[in-house]
Amino acid sequence: MNGPSRTVGIQRVTADGATLTEDQVAAEEPLEIRIEGRSIAITMRTPGHDLELAAGFLFTEGVIDGLDDLRAIAHVDDPSDPQGNTVDTVLASGVPAARRSAADRALYASSSCGVCGKASIDRLLVGAPPLHPKWTPDPAVLLALPDRLRKAQAVFDQTGGLHAAALFSPQGELEVVREDIGRHNAVDKVIGWRLREDRVPVDDRILLVSGRAGFEIVQKALVARISVVAAVGAPSSMAVDLAEESGLTLVGFLRDGRYNQYGGGV
Amino acid sequence: MNGPSRTVGIQRVTADGATLTEDQVAAEEPLEIRIEGRSIAITMRTPGHDLELAAGFLFTEGVIDGLDDLRAIAHVDDPSDPQGNTVDTVLASGVPAARRSAADRALYASSSCGVCGKASIDRLLVGAPPLHPKWTPDPAVLLALPDRLRKAQAVFDQTGGLHAAALFSPQGELEVVREDIGRHNAVDKVIGWRLREDRVPVDDRILLVSGRAGFEIVQKALVARISVVAAVGAPSSMAVDLAEESGLTLVGFLRDGRYNQYGGGV
Repeated sequence: MNGPSRTVGIQRVTADGATLTEDQVAAEEPLEIRIEGRSIAITMRTPGHDLELAAGFLFTEGVIDGLDDLRAIAHVDDPSDPQGNTVDTVLASGVPAARRSAADRALYASSSCGVCGKASIDRLLVGAPPLHPKWTPDPAVLLALPDRLRKAQAVFDQTGGLHAAALFSPQGELEVVREDIGRHNAVDKVIGWRLREDRVPVDDRILLVSGRAGFEIVQKALVARISVVAAVGAPSSMAVDLAEESGLTLVGFLRDGRYNQYGGGV
Repeated sequence: MNGPSRTVGIQRVTADGATLTEDQVAAEEPLEIRIEGRSIAITMRTPGHDLELAAGFLFTEGVIDGLDDLRAIAHVDDPSDPQGNTVDTVLASGVPAARRSAADRALYASSSCGVCGKASIDRLLVGAPPLHPKWTPDPAVLLALPDRLRKAQAVFDQTGGLHAAALFSPQGELEVVREDIGRHNAVDKVIGWRLREDRVPVDDRILLVSGRAGFEIVQKALVARISVVAAVGAPSSMAVDLAEESGLTLVGFLRDGRYNQYGGGV
């Protein structure tokens, strides 16, 4: 099993010349996610919290609805895969065949589903209807979150190369943080953690991501019923569209004591 | 047809309160890439330079070997797709059926191909053998590139949300720059531009990317025979592994007058 970072030999170069030294790089390895032996997805991820990642992926892609649907989940014990890069799952017999075999389609849907962004959003809202949140985020709480995230990002400090995702309470208390080389994986890891605690939907938390907020981040949040998504970086146009259509509050450029709010009743 | 950015209404929030205003967000729309009517990939991209993106994708994923393999490429003229989100292609009859129908497999391979990073790299090197570059990059040239890239990034200044990729000569002259919400798409756009100019392989250029360098960026560069890849951000462990195995020079953290060099004879 690999760790989240690895030491490599490098040349460090400046205008004054080069020196040989060592550096930490963020580990990246493929993770194959299986349902009852059948491969349904491969994602490049940072090793660690693999079961959360796989469980979160199945949940946010609409394959399972909750922990009851997930009977077993474990790394495959295979001598040819000493890194632990394969996770297999057993689903409850009640999970419809269409959803099991539709994992490819779900993935497809996730990264767009068709020729038109508007059509993609309309289709998504059938399975994940608009939110009617019982609370709205406090601006003072939002403004305090980036500092709290940075303090919790252990690996980032080593490699400068990982995305982070975290869940915070409406009062701004950090519940869980996960890092990954893939921004979507970091989100699947925090949502998968909640799923494995049998605490979904996640309608009582703010999701904060360290980078940008694209369509797929907002989509995953919506499926998990997260009503507030905050990003340190920029949102995309389709992320804004989906936030507006679904009643989700999308916060972008949350840094340096300010943010922009998209959707959520603008 | 959409532009690369769009105006949306926002609330701008600070500790002092909120104001209603407008902001530019990076446009994100799905692009469906077809071979002779059959869908082979959908990618979330920033509209613009779609034909370069599609051509570059087919090239860096190993479906076509050069411009001779690409007989025709155009947006699909479909009233239900006014955004121009579908590009169809006609390939030369000599392109083997295995490659045409293997585009899904190629994609699979691209994002990992199996349970082991090492196996992925070994398999990739069969189709894209190690490089034997005839030149090495000049440190002074590399150190000057980020400034030149930033000056060329028109859209980034509007949205703060786009990745850029650019090709530079060994002397540091900018040849082409493209922006996209997806880092891989920006790379496919610059390589696709070269392909459509009928100037591949790209063994006479430095590829600079504005963000991080993961495995897939280095993979695409290797297939295009680019021997120097420089990133403003961090590399991943598998990107470093692939650079070392393939003789490609990988430069990371190229900013503030310094960089780290991985592979390429460290």
